[in-house]
Amino acid sequence: MIRVALIGSTGYTALEVARLLLAHPQAELTVATSRSDEGKPLAEIHPSLAGRCEIALQEFAPARIAEQADVAMCCLPHGASAETVRELAAVGIRVIDFSADFRLSSVPLYEHWYGVKHPWPERIGSVVYGMPEYYADEIATADIVANPGCYPTSAIMPLAPLVRDRLIENDDIIVDSKSGVSGAGRSPKLGTLYCEVNESIAAYAIASHRHGPEMQDLIHRISGESVQILFTPHLTPMDRGILSTIYVRPKLLEGDTVETVQTRLMGALRHAYQGQPFVHVVDHIPATKHVVMTNHVQMTVRVAGEKNSPGRAVIVCAIDNLSKGASSAAIQNMNVMFGLDATTGL
Amino acid sequence: MIRVALIGSTGYTALEVARLLLAHPQAELTVATSRSDEGKPLAEIHPSLAGRCEIALQEFAPARIAEQADVAMCCLPHGASAETVRELAAVGIRVIDFSADFRLSSVPLYEHWYGVKHPWPERIGSVVYGMPEYYADEIATADIVANPGCYPTSAIMPLAPLVRDRLIENDDIIVDSKSGVSGAGRSPKLGTLYCEVNESIAAYAIASHRHGPEMQDLIHRISGESVQILFTPHLTPMDRGILSTIYVRPKLLEGDTVETVQTRLMGALRHAYQGQPFVHVVDHIPATKHVVMTNHVQMTVRVAGEKNSPGRAVIVCAIDNLSKGASSAAIQNMNVMFGLDATTGL
Amino acid sequence: MIRVALIGSTGYTALEVARLLLAHPQAELTVATSRSDEGKPLAEIHPSLAGRCEIALQEFAPARIAEQADVAMCCLPHGASAETVRELAAVGIRVIDFSADFRLSSVPLYEHWYGVKHPWPERIGSVVYGMPEYYADEIATADIVANPGCYPTSAIMPLAPLVRDRLIENDDIIVDSKSGVSGAGRSPKLGTLYCEVNESIAAYAIASHRHGPEMQDLIHRISGESVQILFTPHLTPMDRGILSTIYVRPKLLEGDTVETVQTRLMGALRHAYQGQPFVHVVDHIPATKHVVMTNHVQMTVRVAGEKNSPGRAVIVCAIDNLSKGASSAAIQNMNVMFGLDATTGL
Amino acid sequence: MIRVALIGSTGYTALEVARLLLAHPQAELTVATSRSDEGKPLAEIHPSLAGRCEIALQEFAPARIAEQADVAMCCLPHGASAETVRELAAVGIRVIDFSADFRLSSVPLYEHWYGVKHPWPERIGSVVYGMPEYYADEIATADIVANPGCYPTSAIMPLAPLVRDRLIENDDIIVDSKSGVSGAGRSPKLGTLYCEVNESIAAYAIASHRHGPEMQDLIHRISGESVQILFTPHLTPMDRGILSTIYVRPKLLEGDTVETVQTRLMGALRHAYQGQPFVHVVDHIPATKHVVMTNHVQMTVRVAGEKNSPGRAVIVCAIDNLSKGASSAAIQNMNVMFGLDATTGL
Repeated sequence: MIRVALIGSTGYTALEVARLLLAHPQAELTVATSRSDEGKPLAEIHPSLAGRCEIALQEFAPARIAEQADVAMCCLPHGASAETVRELAAVGIRVIDFSADFRLSSVPLYEHWYGVKHPWPERIGSVVYGMPEYYADEIATADIVANPGCYPTSAIMPLAPLVRDRLIENDDIIVDSKSGVSGAGRSPKLGTLYCEVNESIAAYAIASHRHGPEMQDLIHRISGESVQILFTPHLTPMDRGILSTIYVRPKLLEGDTVETVQTRLMGALRHAYQGQPFVHVVDHIPATKHVVMTNHVQMTVRVAGEKNSPGRAVIVCAIDNLSKGASSAAIQNMNVMFGLDATTGL
Repeated sequence: MIRVALIGSTGYTALEVARLLLAHPQAELTVATSRSDEGKPLAEIHPSLAGRCEIALQEFAPARIAEQADVAMCCLPHGASAETVRELAAVGIRVIDFSADFRLSSVPLYEHWYGVKHPWPERIGSVVYGMPEYYADEIATADIVANPGCYPTSAIMPLAPLVRDRLIENDDIIVDSKSGVSGAGRSPKLGTLYCEVNESIAAYAIASHRHGPEMQDLIHRISGESVQILFTPHLTPMDRGILSTIYVRPKLLEGDTVETVQTRLMGALRHAYQGQPFVHVVDHIPATKHVVMTNHVQMTVRVAGEKNSPGRAVIVCAIDNLSKGASSAAIQNMNVMFGLDATTGL
Repeated sequence: MIRVALIGSTGYTALEVARLLLAHPQAELTVATSRSDEGKPLAEIHPSLAGRCEIALQEFAPARIAEQADVAMCCLPHGASAETVRELAAVGIRVIDFSADFRLSSVPLYEHWYGVKHPWPERIGSVVYGMPEYYADEIATADIVANPGCYPTSAIMPLAPLVRDRLIENDDIIVDSKSGVSGAGRSPKLGTLYCEVNESIAAYAIASHRHGPEMQDLIHRISGESVQILFTPHLTPMDRGILSTIYVRPKLLEGDTVETVQTRLMGALRHAYQGQPFVHVVDHIPATKHVVMTNHVQMTVRVAGEKNSPGRAVIVCAIDNLSKGASSAAIQNMNVMFGLDATTGL
Repeated sequence: MIRVALIGSTGYTALEVARLLLAHPQAELTVATSRSDEGKPLAEIHPSLAGRCEIALQEFAPARIAEQADVAMCCLPHGASAETVRELAAVGIRVIDFSADFRLSSVPLYEHWYGVKHPWPERIGSVVYGMPEYYADEIATADIVANPGCYPTSAIMPLAPLVRDRLIENDDIIVDSKSGVSGAGRSPKLGTLYCEVNESIAAYAIASHRHGPEMQDLIHRISGESVQILFTPHLTPMDRGILSTIYVRPKLLEGDTVETVQTRLMGALRHAYQGQPFVHVVDHIPATKHVVMTNHVQMTVRVAGEKNSPGRAVIVCAIDNLSKGASSAAIQNMNVMFGLDATTGL
């Protein structure tokens, strides 16, 4: 049994990790820490765990955690996280970091978008991005894994193969994403009160959300190509799920029709994810309901335009922001890190 | 035009008052105060008012308000409200108070349930309860009106006539109420975050909610009878609306059947609210959707039991907690206070 | 009092018309027809009208309606509607048609997109599009008004002025719209069952929805410019509201920065809608919650790109699909047709 | 591996069974039948299974199913189900029946409440009720298991021990239940359209729902006591979950206080479910969110009244109507039938 420590246990991603571990045949939660609720049972913070989980919250003590756990899932906010990850790494615990602290490939990019000095800049560039569909080998041996952002997962997965295969224009990509409210976290704020967001949809952080550069950076790392993405996130009245509607301009070949372009793009995606147990290139248009509470990804392509005059391609990709966008992706990473089948417990 | 001052302008009931006044042909909002957001446009706090309302928030200054307004709608929390109402009354402004400070008929009852010393105990007992269906004459001349609680409105309206007419047992009444989340206010709290309450229903404050004694007190004042109510509120995943399912034991007469009891109870309610423009005794079972965004009340009765052996009666009553349960009821009270038809602007 | 007939009374737009007329000081519902529910009280079909509306449904008999009503609101499906409108016009009743039958300016365009022969092709081209912000004079004297589509309203209102003023490229417009479920109507279908759409967002009819050509056609009529729009609608888990996120490419001038472009586009919209009581160009990013249950429109612009290298502009526009997207727009049209202030009863 | 056949595969409970089997380590779905969609892939009917399930729907052919499956989960409507169960039993397949056809202990009771002649009355009385907390031994060897109703599960589990232990009055029990919409099934109906039920709560079938007699019958079978239950179901705007708020009158002992009664009732429930992995008697008040997507049950008790004058007890019980109220309960039953640990795959 893999022994797992949960660092920062009061939020939605932490609950999701705990819930998934209860059903995991080869891993178990052995430690849960919290600065604010030390001593309380984890099930008091998350009443859905009542009667199912006996763990009490403890303070963060790396040396003790090293005795109790093989891997730490670090669910702390950016900035705070890097410091904690360093302390865990120092005592030899492998870490899956849910924050953005080790996702970007350059310190200036991080410091520009996150507005803080990076606490451990030396490690930027040598932490693997936890997307096993692309980095399984590095993840298998990693000491630290940067768990991907939720929006980026929904955009990178359909875009990376198309950019890598030179099938679309790199400088004309629009990602219009719709996320459930859990992505905004569990801290009480006016903006996530039920009566503020229920029965309403709203755009926010237009062209200024931190996940935009994460998408660009990763697609570059995967494909070797620089891309320009205009990213608009929307807060949608639902607990979970991200739907990204992505507008791209296909590179056209002589004689292309709507149909040939559609076939080419769908084919490229199908080929890219052949054998991947969690990524499904589907004929129907995915809805978030098709994937919530799972680690699965569904995506499809529709090419616009008149028959012989193909226009933009519209890609739709659906994931669960708390699952493949956070906690089940972390379990998948853990499985790969410890030599299990990627699907174990998922 | 009646000039209206809004005291405490940042919450949902205040927004609802502002919204209703925009459509009122004989009243207008002239003042809005806020301790926390003084100076800001009201429309910045409530973006739905953008382009529709020019008022800026000002500090609370009774003398100045007396020059600008004929009536104040006081949307402050209990305790704080009574003090403010006293200051407004002192400068001659008529007040409709949304808090519970003047609803109950006895100081000890108030202090027991609200856990604070009453700031102006002398006025307890001489403030009219703002339910024009029962107290229109007193409201017409009142200096202060205690605007009813939301849950109490949904229980008093169907119960008071039945108790007054001696049709049900007074000591065996259960009120099981389901409320939308707006009843919990607009202050950020974990318990009203979207992801905590969405897709979930929960009971709270079982047999210990302050609106229980308010129901008992008012039914006693209206009917002259003491009643015993077991009250359970529930938080329901919707913005607005209260549905109260009320279990009572009808007094039976010789030869009563399910049908005769049903007819008697429905008849008593129909008679009690004949000519009341906002209260509808209906044949269908009301849903909150039938009344939200209106000042209307829908209620019905179903008698349980075998044909010749009538059992309990189940009463269902639906209101909108922010409308008839708060802000539109206040407008109705204002209309009555200023000699307008009760339905004006509603 | 304007006497209004409702033709096709069982759907959501019909209920919304009835509800708005109850609050209208100078119009009243005098007739409501229904093929399927003839004889039933309208309030039985729409229980929210219980106790508030005495009208019973009657069969469709144009001659009798001509005696009872001054204007008909025709809430029938496309195809069926044109025939009915013709019969109403024949007996001299002015008509506001909610269907798409008279919205487009060419018969082939209609027949291509709607897949049926137009029942009254002679009138195509001589029916005014019921958007009083552009066509108030024609509406004032019209015998037939084509009430705009919901999605088109949310796109035409922000785009038409920018195209007319030559501020954006005409051939690179993407409209990504998110609509509440009421837009799909009240006929029982698997796709609009609660458990199919709740807690889920989905794209549909990608680049193939009939409202795309309606947007293009109207913007052309308003601006004289041909535009190319890629339109993707999404079904969003909420009753009402449309949010359109619109991606356009601004025409750049020498020395333009993000800020100058932003100022120019916002300025053009503010100028276009100056004095329009229902259209608000706002600084905040609109959410559908800011406009639902009103006839109001909120829109804003955000320009992407680096400071001195402005990129695309993102326009966000929010309306209520059942209000400004259907029924309150019809009331606004009626007001204009009968010489009332456009805001009467709204 | 246990081979499972799904009979009637297009509804929500069938999807839930398929979903649970995908994660079950010792059972697999081998057959899925459907009258209406024969030949289609199951994943076309339920797009959340895309890429995860290769099964195509076949017609119902008992002999062939007998070769392909060890157990059938029969998700048909009442009446139709009994006939099918009989055919399956005839070819030696063990059956878990989701309908009500074999839940009640008497033919007249069934025929009175369901309004149809029972197709296989001989088996009434000899089919075990699939609640392993009470009938594990019978289930282990059963050929047919009647899977419990959703509302009954939420009422029987807290009430049966209290009645059996003679702790409450048998003739004064009120069950006020709130259910998510999935309980109403997946057939398109006006009453379960999104816009009819969203943002609304409504009572229905007051004192006349078929699950009332099922509760009474089962509590009688478990406890030997006859009980009288007044049952009111409510449709709540959420996908899944049932919360039952249950009002009972405790039998009082000399010197009882609120506290002693509370302790006695909680103690009895804790004792009854000691060692049961899915039933949790908790101190907090359960919300449906604490149990949805699980097979778990949470319940608690609050006693009303003044300190030394205990009144009614209010019991709150939360389950997921599609899980413990249907499909995961069926998996639990299957586990018991095939000698697995009851928690396998759950």
